[in-house]
Amino acid sequence: MADKFSTAPPRGMRDILPDEVELRDVATERILAVYRGYGFRRIETPALESLTLLAGSDSGENEKLIYKVLKRGEDLDAALRSGSRELADLGLRFDLTVPLARYYAENHARLPDPLKAIQIGPVWRAERPQKGRYRQFTQCDIDVLGTASAVVEVELILATCEALRAAFDLADLTVRINDRRILTLIAGACGFAGRDQGRFFITFDKLDKIGAAGVLAELREAGHEAAAIARFEGLLPDLQKGEPTPESLRASLGAGAGEAAAAFGWLTAIIQAATGQLPAGARVRFDPTLVRGMGYYTGTIFEIVAADFPSSIAGGGRYDRMIGRLLGREVPACGFSIGFERLVALLGERRGAGPVAASPPVAQAPRIALLVDGGADLTAALAAARALRAEGNLVSLELRRKNLGKQLDDFAVHGVRGYATVQDGRAVVKPLAGPRERR
Amino acid sequence: MADKFSTAPPRGMRDILPDEVELRDVATERILAVYRGYGFRRIETPALESLTLLAGSDSGENEKLIYKVLKRGEDLDAALRSGSRELADLGLRFDLTVPLARYYAENHARLPDPLKAIQIGPVWRAERPQKGRYRQFTQCDIDVLGTASAVVEVELILATCEALRAAFDLADLTVRINDRRILTLIAGACGFAGRDQGRFFITFDKLDKIGAAGVLAELREAGHEAAAIARFEGLLPDLQKGEPTPESLRASLGAGAGEAAAAFGWLTAIIQAATGQLPAGARVRFDPTLVRGMGYYTGTIFEIVAADFPSSIAGGGRYDRMIGRLLGREVPACGFSIGFERLVALLGERRGAGPVAASPPVAQAPRIALLVDGGADLTAALAAARALRAEGNLVSLELRRKNLGKQLDDFAVHGVRGYATVQDGRAVVKPLAGPRERR
Repeated sequence: MADKFSTAPPRGMRDILPDEVELRDVATERILAVYRGYGFRRIETPALESLTLLAGSDSGENEKLIYKVLKRGEDLDAALRSGSRELADLGLRFDLTVPLARYYAENHARLPDPLKAIQIGPVWRAERPQKGRYRQFTQCDIDVLGTASAVVEVELILATCEALRAAFDLADLTVRINDRRILTLIAGACGFAGRDQGRFFITFDKLDKIGAAGVLAELREAGHEAAAIARFEGLLPDLQKGEPTPESLRASLGAGAGEAAAAFGWLTAIIQAATGQLPAGARVRFDPTLVRGMGYYTGTIFEIVAADFPSSIAGGGRYDRMIGRLLGREVPACGFSIGFERLVALLGERRGAGPVAASPPVAQAPRIALLVDGGADLTAALAAARALRAEGNLVSLELRRKNLGKQLDDFAVHGVRGYATVQDGRAVVKPLAGPRERR
Repeated sequence: MADKFSTAPPRGMRDILPDEVELRDVATERILAVYRGYGFRRIETPALESLTLLAGSDSGENEKLIYKVLKRGEDLDAALRSGSRELADLGLRFDLTVPLARYYAENHARLPDPLKAIQIGPVWRAERPQKGRYRQFTQCDIDVLGTASAVVEVELILATCEALRAAFDLADLTVRINDRRILTLIAGACGFAGRDQGRFFITFDKLDKIGAAGVLAELREAGHEAAAIARFEGLLPDLQKGEPTPESLRASLGAGAGEAAAAFGWLTAIIQAATGQLPAGARVRFDPTLVRGMGYYTGTIFEIVAADFPSSIAGGGRYDRMIGRLLGREVPACGFSIGFERLVALLGERRGAGPVAASPPVAQAPRIALLVDGGADLTAALAAARALRAEGNLVSLELRRKNLGKQLDDFAVHGVRGYATVQDGRAVVKPLAGPRERR
């Protein structure tokens, strides 16, 4: 086989070495501990879903990136015979939200109501490979299904901030919060017609990247009405400057009664309740320029930014109409997703863990190599290893090599903290210096 | 979308409810704790591999069950234009051994030597759906790559037995052990020609199921030489009865020197070393009728059976030539795999956990529902919840419903152990009886 193909993983995917797996596992455990503390529980769905579900889920660009699975057996033969282009019936999930909606629609009678779900698992997107982005990556979501109350938003914010602190030691956090209903009110107040609002939001969403002048230019280029653009330009200072509050924006817009106006009070309540409970260093800030890309959001939307971190590290929102499309009755839903991959990469950089970690990436039980000669001393070595394990060590029996110095260096490179030999039936442990000190 | 398709997961796959995920997570954590104690470390490979790798891996029936992923973009267009039947380039992995071999061949320079790998993850097989078998399921393997010594076999046996005890409370365990070299010696001693031995082993492997008479009949039907069958019949009592030892079989066979004869001493050493260390209730037994299906085994093979359990619950063996086919130089390798899915099913049966668990499936922190009215008491409730969490509880804020009795019943059904209300700024917790007591 060796001459036929490379041993590299498929393009855009990657193997994960033990040091990084440990980093990921510890981060995962810490996130789970926080989420469980808030009453969330893990669920699992299959990696594969029907293409009908995935391709009809209103998930925008992601639907173009589905890995499709070839039909099998007679179904495939029939498709090929008929010259059909419908050669696939299943696809790998591209996110965890669409499968969650299907899961809830299918299993709701057997699930707690509300369902407070944790999902941590891989998703797949056939994206153009680029630095730091992979075609298989882990998503980490919490969602509450079945509760329309803003209590959900508050819990999601608190739990997510606490998880970011526990798993990634991030404390200087800003939760940006907005509401789709307010965005619609802004668009309406400026005079953008309903059918133009989707395009308006896509451009508005670029404010962080291209600035106010860039957004206005793009709106003009797109042919929006000049009067609407002018009104929007007049409103921009109120949206961007002086830390607007929901009530101050409401006053600027002169919003009346109705659903949209209710969103201001809704956000004020969330911000007040969360602010009183957030750990030191974290804050919630109303940001009427926050848009977020997904088409399925219906209410609250949020993102978290951390000091010294260029992009947002978590995001989510309320999507009260997605499940209704599958179940036939509406189920309120709201979720928050942590940018697991980029945060694990941050952990790795911080601890200097490259392909070969210079030091154990995380606090864990000491790893000890117990040297054996492979023959007569095995029984004594096994007993000695057991005794070391009972003291809380991670103990690997290792055959002693001729070049012991080289062998010890190798141990140290891979994070082994001590080596042991058996003397008079007992293990004698000696510390191993880290590779930096040894070299 | 609702009228277009069912919300069921794809055929042969399943959704996992929170109670079962918790059962699986606890089992996984306990297995990992034991394996880590023995110096094994988790690795991860992508779910997708190249079809070239998967289909050329000498993995027998499994290669027929690959979920194939359609090519994308220009590659797909080209394949369709040319009328090629090669429409797929990737496949979902059907086991964890073939990806491990590729992983080692690709990354060996950055990995510890030997590599002691843990893999726990999903695999996919497009099998005919049947009761208790799914098309996506979890495998749980440990492997040692790079060590030819029997120390590896001893560690694999000890670690696996300890994991079975820790995770599934199974103590009455019998490790059946044999060696492919001994099987070859048996076949040769009976006079089965080299080219017939593969078919002979497949029939021999059915001894447990169809008995000696059945095996002999099948060998005759298959047209094996009558003299060889007769010699095999004469040998059968020595293979089956009176707990043969490697040395007793060696005497029966009159085996001479060479590699095959070395296998007897090899097994004797493994059995002796492991026997001295196994926990009470577990034993290692030489079983010259153990065959195991995979074509890639080259030496030791083993299986574990538990009292009162019909099929084997773990299996593995040495496959010293698989990695060489990818790497160009031979790397000794040996692994042991736990039947994770069937053992988790056993846990679920034992604890009476059906679709709705009657009681918390595993020991964990108590889950408490903190009732809130959604409005004015939110700040006090959040503070009270935090205080309860600090005491080690898992606390979910839940909106109080009109029918509180029904709501408390629902909590109990889903394993909530207490409910709390806030009085004078503090949580007052009352126990919830399990659903059995309540009904």
